Amino acid sequence: MDRGRLEAFSDGVFAVAITLLALNLTVAGPTGQGSLAHQLYEKWPAFAGYLVSFLTIGIIWVNHHALVRQIKSVDRTLLFVNQLLLLFVVLIPFGTATAADYLPHNSPDARLAMVLYSGIFLGMSAGFSAIFEWTLHGERVYHPLPTEQHWPARRRFAGGALVYVIAMVVAVFYALASFVLIGLVAVYYIFERTPASPASPEGSDEEEPVV
Amino acid sequence: MDRGRLEAFSDGVFAVAITLLALNLTVAGPTGQGSLAHQLYEKWPAFAGYLVSFLTIGIIWVNHHALVRQIKSVDRTLLFVNQLLLLFVVLIPFGTATAADYLPHNSPDARLAMVLYSGIFLGMSAGFSAIFEWTLHGERVYHPLPTEQHWPARRRFAGGALVYVIAMVVAVFYALASFVLIGLVAVYYIFERTPASPASPEGSDEEEPVV
Amino acid sequence: MDRGRLEAFSDGVFAVAITLLALNLTVAGPTGQGSLAHQLYEKWPAFAGYLVSFLTIGIIWVNHHALVRQIKSVDRTLLFVNQLLLLFVVLIPFGTATAADYLPHNSPDARLAMVLYSGIFLGMSAGFSAIFEWTLHGERVYHPLPTEQHWPARRRFAGGALVYVIAMVVAVFYALASFVLIGLVAVYYIFERTPASPASPEGSDEEEPVV
Amino acid sequence: MDRGRLEAFSDGVFAVAITLLALNLTVAGPTGQGSLAHQLYEKWPAFAGYLVSFLTIGIIWVNHHALVRQIKSVDRTLLFVNQLLLLFVVLIPFGTATAADYLPHNSPDARLAMVLYSGIFLGMSAGFSAIFEWTLHGERVYHPLPTEQHWPARRRFAGGALVYVIAMVVAVFYALASFVLIGLVAVYYIFERTPASPASPEGSDEEEPVV
Repeated sequence: MDRGRLEAFSDGVFAVAITLLALNLTVAGPTGQGSLAHQLYEKWPAFAGYLVSFLTIGIIWVNHHALVRQIKSVDRTLLFVNQLLLLFVVLIPFGTATAADYLPHNSPDARLAMVLYSGIFLGMSAGFSAIFEWTLHGERVYHPLPTEQHWPARRRFAGGALVYVIAMVVAVFYALASFVLIGLVAVYYIFERTPASPASPEGSDEEEPVV
Repeated sequence: MDRGRLEAFSDGVFAVAITLLALNLTVAGPTGQGSLAHQLYEKWPAFAGYLVSFLTIGIIWVNHHALVRQIKSVDRTLLFVNQLLLLFVVLIPFGTATAADYLPHNSPDARLAMVLYSGIFLGMSAGFSAIFEWTLHGERVYHPLPTEQHWPARRRFAGGALVYVIAMVVAVFYALASFVLIGLVAVYYIFERTPASPASPEGSDEEEPVV
Repeated sequence: MDRGRLEAFSDGVFAVAITLLALNLTVAGPTGQGSLAHQLYEKWPAFAGYLVSFLTIGIIWVNHHALVRQIKSVDRTLLFVNQLLLLFVVLIPFGTATAADYLPHNSPDARLAMVLYSGIFLGMSAGFSAIFEWTLHGERVYHPLPTEQHWPARRRFAGGALVYVIAMVVAVFYALASFVLIGLVAVYYIFERTPASPASPEGSDEEEPVV
Repeated sequence: MDRGRLEAFSDGVFAVAITLLALNLTVAGPTGQGSLAHQLYEKWPAFAGYLVSFLTIGIIWVNHHALVRQIKSVDRTLLFVNQLLLLFVVLIPFGTATAADYLPHNSPDARLAMVLYSGIFLGMSAGFSAIFEWTLHGERVYHPLPTEQHWPARRRFAGGALVYVIAMVVAVFYALASFVLIGLVAVYYIFERTPASPASPEGSDEEEPVV
């Protein structure tokens, strides 16, 4: 199975990135200021950021799984496009920590931190779209999407990326609103199937295994 | 094998989480206060926490292994339920470090830290029960549990979760007692087979390979 | 499949090393000096270093993938030669962080940091060449390189290593130039196929899957 | 393949532990005391410790690989015995960092640090012997060791563990000598095949693939 190591390496990166997210929750402990309850309360943006980033990495992993398992054979281009996706995945713990440091205030720093955080997710979204685009050409997947569905599928992917563009624009004005928007996107994707992957054509039965 | 990447990703998260546990053992070194012996002695809650959390993650990994290998085909629901389990697994190094920082004193902070620590294990237990519940429906596992055994099995799972609820309640009054209780649970599970997974029906021979 | 665990262990090390790269991006946050924009600006060598090291690890992973999949059967020698490669891969986050700490200045410290950084990549390159050398002997790969191509292939590998030797020499005089050179090598390798692996004989079609 | 997840989880832990070793090399950077050359020189025990621990983890991984691939079917006992091995593997980065902090001085603290470091390797050795012992009973491996070879094989394993006992005793008197001894053991094992695993009976050809 040609795509085995692509999956193994990507899974490794996803797993490490998702686990490193929790490093940012560390409290100062008895040497810190105030009681533990106070320290935990003060860190609520770190906990909220952990939740949102964990869910988002989880979703992109599920979609990566669904997309890559359709691939018949891996080439050098795909490996590098996949690296582009991982380049942004690896940045997520950094972006989350930075955003959590400056939230919930609406200072210029908090707004910049949220532009950065949205931008990392936008880059991740673009990397995933690039993998999807790769699957549209040649005889690369088991069940190729019919040509007339290429543009509708691309538009759906662009829609996903657009949400992060909007989050970036919102971040310029109000940091917390941008964060809430990204959180709502994560919740939305959990309960709604991403319909754009070749593995899940529109109109397919909700209950069929798609991954 | 459909469940391959679910296992690979979960194994990655379990492996990283279990290895990050040891980061909390770091001593201050020659620049710290007192001799190395004194520093190590002062950190005994960190060593005890390492042991208990390592064993608990190890047990849940063994049970995850036993449960997932029974699954015929993975769907999107299972992937997200599994993410729920991992959400709490990833929190364990954070919970362990926080508990170790405040133990062995019985301060309000230590009690809160132990409520948090027990709560993380309770969440992990709930996530694992949710995966088990998923296996009870449809034709999802190779050897489905007979319907009349569903409720007994659920009660056994609830029993496991109940221990962590008790640990949370005990933590409100006495931090160290809660920690000892969680440690005893870990030791108990190592020597006792968890009988509730579909892979290990009641009455089966103790010596048969169950994983 | 004999080489399965060699690949799994190597993938794990590559994945952890590539993800740890981002740890060096952490900013001081609100307690640091100056605005977030200023802190990020001051850290540009860390971001540049992240990009260059990420791409370089990505390339070596792709080449490792291409080379190892040709191997029929793993022996103890190969395992230890592979450990030699990984010994240097694991040092990359350390080398990157040290270089980023001292760049962009051209102080003696910056030059030493870049000698170290280039030296780690040189070691990695040597480790990879050693794996390649191992594949040239005996009946170890599926499509052995004809004997008359051994020396040309070795020269190409030596050429790759030579770039890092040059980067080391340049680093003695001008730190930033050495860094730019290593970055250009990474970009070059992404767009150019490494022609020396047994999996990709010269003159083969560019579009064929080589990995 | 029943042992797949045991290998995947173990490989993950080995890979993370081996990569975390490098975290201890971080220098203070421009804000630290003295030039980079001085800082690197002062940290030579950290570099030596990195090398010795990396090699030792590498060797135990190779031996784990050789031993586990002989196993026909995994049971719950083996999983927990394997956890015992991993419990000590995960402690290695901690033990290495602590030893490096106190070496090269021969202070009481340095001697205690080396007792700890040797003790962790002794625990790892004991965990590995326990897995080997498990393979001696029942019909658990493909090529069981003949009964009359059980005790010779156990003695060889005890010999390996004995080295770490000696290193512990030596550490009580002279820290650096203990460290050098452990380093020599690592070098010895790289060039000498461990003859005790069922995969490599005595007298077998050196060139045959043993892993």
